[in-house]
Amino acid sequence: MDIARIDAAADRLRGFARRTPLLSAPGLDAIAGRRVLVKAECLQKTGSFKFRGAWAAISALPADRRARGILAFSSGNHAQGIAAAAAAHGVPSVIIMPSDAPQSKIDGTRALGGEVVLYDRGSQSREELGDRLQAERGMVLVKPFDEPEVIAGQGSCGLEIAEQAARQGVTQADVLVCCGGGGLTSGIALALEARAPRMRVRPVEPEGFDDVTRSLATGAIQRNDRMAGGLCDAILTPAPGDVTFPILHRLCGPGLVVTDDEALRAMALAFRHLKVVAEPGGAVALAAALFHGDQIDGDAVICTISGGNVDADVYARALALA
Amino acid sequence: MDIARIDAAADRLRGFARRTPLLSAPGLDAIAGRRVLVKAECLQKTGSFKFRGAWAAISALPADRRARGILAFSSGNHAQGIAAAAAAHGVPSVIIMPSDAPQSKIDGTRALGGEVVLYDRGSQSREELGDRLQAERGMVLVKPFDEPEVIAGQGSCGLEIAEQAARQGVTQADVLVCCGGGGLTSGIALALEARAPRMRVRPVEPEGFDDVTRSLATGAIQRNDRMAGGLCDAILTPAPGDVTFPILHRLCGPGLVVTDDEALRAMALAFRHLKVVAEPGGAVALAAALFHGDQIDGDAVICTISGGNVDADVYARALALA
Repeated sequence: MDIARIDAAADRLRGFARRTPLLSAPGLDAIAGRRVLVKAECLQKTGSFKFRGAWAAISALPADRRARGILAFSSGNHAQGIAAAAAAHGVPSVIIMPSDAPQSKIDGTRALGGEVVLYDRGSQSREELGDRLQAERGMVLVKPFDEPEVIAGQGSCGLEIAEQAARQGVTQADVLVCCGGGGLTSGIALALEARAPRMRVRPVEPEGFDDVTRSLATGAIQRNDRMAGGLCDAILTPAPGDVTFPILHRLCGPGLVVTDDEALRAMALAFRHLKVVAEPGGAVALAAALFHGDQIDGDAVICTISGGNVDADVYARALALA
Repeated sequence: MDIARIDAAADRLRGFARRTPLLSAPGLDAIAGRRVLVKAECLQKTGSFKFRGAWAAISALPADRRARGILAFSSGNHAQGIAAAAAAHGVPSVIIMPSDAPQSKIDGTRALGGEVVLYDRGSQSREELGDRLQAERGMVLVKPFDEPEVIAGQGSCGLEIAEQAARQGVTQADVLVCCGGGGLTSGIALALEARAPRMRVRPVEPEGFDDVTRSLATGAIQRNDRMAGGLCDAILTPAPGDVTFPILHRLCGPGLVVTDDEALRAMALAFRHLKVVAEPGGAVALAAALFHGDQIDGDAVICTISGGNVDADVYARALALA
C-alpha cells in the first residue's frame, strides 16, 4: 500500500464520488475550544465514505471477473456503497446483512439495486452463506476494510482533507477518524503521511468496542468481547484487520473512546451547527473533538463525519439532546 | 442590476462564502420521476444563503459608513448572515427580530456577535424601532431582499448552479427557488439569464403566503393577507419588493405553491436521501419538485434548499413523516 495506489484510486473516483466539503461553524469551535474542521462524508453518495472504497475496488477488477457480480458482507454502509457502485458498473451485487441492521440501510441497499440476503447474527454464519454464494454464482467478494483497493479508495478522502485543510490554513492537527475495522483510518493515514505529514491520525471508537485503541496501545491485534448492544452499528467490527492493523500501528494513535450518549450529543450539534445528518457511528470523531479536547493537541482539530444513514427514531433521540 | 454586479459580488465572496454542493440521490429521482439536483444552501455559512447577500452588501460599503455598524430586520436567517458578515468585517450589528422567531435563530444570531432587539409583531412597529436606531447610532440599514447588493450576493448562488449543473450535464431545466421577498429568486434568475439561458426560474411559496405567485400571475404586486400562522417563517414576507418584482416579472414564473405538510415531508426526504437539514421554508422548492411534478417541465429539475435553521421540535415533526 502506497500513495501511488491512493492517487490511482482517486483518479478512478473522479467524476463518480463526491468531493465532500470540509465544514466548520463558530459554535463548534466555541464548544471545542479550538478550530474544528469537519469532513462531511455523510454527504458522500450513498450517505457514507464507503462508496469510495466500493467504487475503487469494483473499478479495479478485470471486466470479466467484475461481470460475475459482487458479493459483500455489511451492516449497511458498505452494503449501500457496493450496491451503488456495482449498479453503476452494470453488474449485479448480493449483500449479506445482519437481520438487525437499521431498516433504512436495508431499504437503501435494495433501492440502489443490491440483492439483500439477511442472516441472524446469533445463529447463522455469514461466512458460510458467503462461501456458498461465491461457489454457486462465482461472485467476487469485496471485503469491507481489509482489502488494499478498498483502503486506497478511502484514502482519497485523506487526499481531500490535506488539500482542503491547507486551503483553510491548517497543516498541523490531530485528525480524528471514526473507526471500525480501520479501512478509512488507514487510508486517510497513508494519504496524510504523503501529503500532510504534520497531521496525526487518531481512530475514535465507541465505549465497549475499542478494539483498535487497545490494539494500538498493546501493539498487537485485540478483539472486542461483544459485537452487539451499541448504537454505533456502522463501526462495530470484531478487530482491526491483517491489512489495516500494520498501517494503523505504524501511523496512527493513540485512539480515543466516546460514549453512545456523547455520539448522540455530537449528532445534535452537527444538526444545529452544520446542518448535516450524522449517524451514531459517524459522529464519534466529532464527539471526541467536542468532549475530549483534553486528549487532543493543537489549535485546530479535524474530524470525519463518516456517515449519515440513521433511522428517524434514533435521530429523534439525538435531537432531544439538542 | 446586471450580471457584472453579480460577478463583482461573487468575487468579493470568494474565500468567505462556501461554494455549496449540488446534491442528488437516486431515491429522490425515483419519487420525482425525473433527475432532481439540489443546491444545498443550508450548508452555507450561518445555515442559509443569506450570508451571501449580507456579505456582498457589507463588503460593498465604504469603510467609514460600514464602521458605524449594520442594522437589519429579520426573522432569523438574514439576521445570522448579517451578524456573521458584520463580525468578520469587525463592525457591530443590531438585528431587530420578532419575539416569536425560532429560538435557535435568536440564539444563533447572538452567538455570531449580533445584538438582538426583539419586538412584538402584533403591537410594535419594527420600522419605528429601526428609524430610532439609525438616528441614534447612525447605523446602516441592510434590507433583507429589496437591495441591489443583496440581490447581487444571492446571485452568486445562481452562478454556481449554472456551473455545477452544466458539469452534471444539465443545461435546461426548471429551477425552483424558495421565495420570500424574492432576493434569492431574482438574483439566481439574473445569473441564469446570463449563464444558463435555457433554465427557467420559478418561485415556490407556502400555501396562504403566495404573494409572489399571485403577483406574477396578475403582473402587479400582490400582498399576503396575513403574516403569521405558517411553519415557513423564513419566507413569510408581505409582498415582493420594488426592486425584486420587476426582475421576477421579467424572468420568472409561473410560481408554485406547496402545503406546510409537503414541506415537512420534503424535510424528511432530505434527511433520508441527502443527509442535509432543511428548515420548512427552505424545503418548499424540494417539496414542489417531489410532489408537484405535473407542473414542471423537462427531464431534470433543480431546486434550492435555502436554509436549515430549524428548531429540534419542528424537525422531529418532520421526521415522524419519514
